[in-house]
Amino acid sequence: MRLATIRTSAGTRAVRLTADGYLDLGYADVGELLSNEDWASRAAVSEGDVHPARAADLAPVVTRPGKVLCVGLNYRTHILEMGRGLPEHPTLFAKFAESLIGARDDVELPPESDAVDWEAELAVVIGKTVRRASEDEAERAIAGLTVLNDVSMRDWQFRTKEWLQGKTFEATTPVGPVLVTPDELPGGLRPAVSISCGVNGEVMQKADTSDLVFGPVDLVRYASTILTLRPGDIIATGTPGGVGHARTPARYLADGDTVVTEIAGIGRLDNTARAA
Amino acid sequence: MRLATIRTSAGTRAVRLTADGYLDLGYADVGELLSNEDWASRAAVSEGDVHPARAADLAPVVTRPGKVLCVGLNYRTHILEMGRGLPEHPTLFAKFAESLIGARDDVELPPESDAVDWEAELAVVIGKTVRRASEDEAERAIAGLTVLNDVSMRDWQFRTKEWLQGKTFEATTPVGPVLVTPDELPGGLRPAVSISCGVNGEVMQKADTSDLVFGPVDLVRYASTILTLRPGDIIATGTPGGVGHARTPARYLADGDTVVTEIAGIGRLDNTARAA
Repeated sequence: MRLATIRTSAGTRAVRLTADGYLDLGYADVGELLSNEDWASRAAVSEGDVHPARAADLAPVVTRPGKVLCVGLNYRTHILEMGRGLPEHPTLFAKFAESLIGARDDVELPPESDAVDWEAELAVVIGKTVRRASEDEAERAIAGLTVLNDVSMRDWQFRTKEWLQGKTFEATTPVGPVLVTPDELPGGLRPAVSISCGVNGEVMQKADTSDLVFGPVDLVRYASTILTLRPGDIIATGTPGGVGHARTPARYLADGDTVVTEIAGIGRLDNTARAA
Repeated sequence: MRLATIRTSAGTRAVRLTADGYLDLGYADVGELLSNEDWASRAAVSEGDVHPARAADLAPVVTRPGKVLCVGLNYRTHILEMGRGLPEHPTLFAKFAESLIGARDDVELPPESDAVDWEAELAVVIGKTVRRASEDEAERAIAGLTVLNDVSMRDWQFRTKEWLQGKTFEATTPVGPVLVTPDELPGGLRPAVSISCGVNGEVMQKADTSDLVFGPVDLVRYASTILTLRPGDIIATGTPGGVGHARTPARYLADGDTVVTEIAGIGRLDNTARAA
């Protein structure tokens, strides 16, 4: 199944992608749908209003997740090419819901930053309340996977030792277009699919999600040791090499730049950077 | 005014402390109350059920804040005594709502950590939606101040460069007992009051909130540059010297230890550490 949240004149709606368009599932967003234990059967219904897919205005796949956990340094090849050893534990940091935007929304370039950078990421959406998950429980707690670009203000990220302030600027993090359930993906919850980010048509990042040090199931297990994960929570799994900050000279987003973030078999984010 | 959230057999309730006890204000928690623009007049009502103050079971003053922002390295004397220069920018990190507990709840010692430490902090509760606040707007956006103990798992905090995973363990961060509006505090929004933390009756931290490098108004201005602050959001302003991790030998919380976190003029948290 492919689930999305779209904006309509009557507010946001959780929908399922069908051959005819987006089928309205009767919930305000995918987060609200997932809060039902039997969300999968509720999402499988075949009756409901259909919104044309082409004209749809996509919201963040979960509009107000309770938590957005992010992971740093998680692509094996990239870590090794930087001369570092593979990490024993995932590096976790946070984002807040205010940073999220839809799959075709503009990325807001705040006047306060001169160093806005891209980070294509595979993201996990939680579908079940879970704490201290076993491998099996972690697998069952994952509703599906989606695409996220962890757009980062590098100047703010490195003002202090903690990255948060460069990671959670308002309206900068696209997430979507759809949540894809694992049965539809090559590799399922250990997906082996191409991930890329292009800026103005130039490929900046290109990797394979099979290169992740900590995969979706590992990350759910690890994070759920710390605190309860709940339906709608998002875990962004980290980005491969090729970010603008690491280029010589460094390259950052400017007004009008287009950013395409794509994961094969999941979907594509099409965003334009716009001076706020 | 002194506002709290208490647990009753009918769920949590926002209350105001009166001479007779806790007056029920008709909202599920202080966060829901604050989401009304005229919350101050709504909280000033004199009619409603009264819950006896002594028997009250205190919940986190806001049960599910949208955001908990925390600040590191913010007490001038402590920074200077460590031989560091005063920071130009606040160090920000996050906590999630799952970490919060009430003013008299047990602090859960997870079996996964051997290094649970205390951090007495003054906390700001937001009462108004605000972005890129001026000084005036920041002042008006603050509903009041409360007490928080940013209990930290030092082993997890320092596993990686990012502190988050040691800062947001489930059921470890007491916040309360009450939100105190600034008109009731010496120094108002630039409070000059004693802050302390005692463990098993021994004073571990003792400082004055006038020693903060970045005060409540500065922090609201700074954080609101990054993203929109909303009613019920919490900003924990950092802790003074005297934490267990910096002692020789290091000292951490053990099952049964009592932790008293107190800010003069605001209130006192009384928590016991309990092996989960």
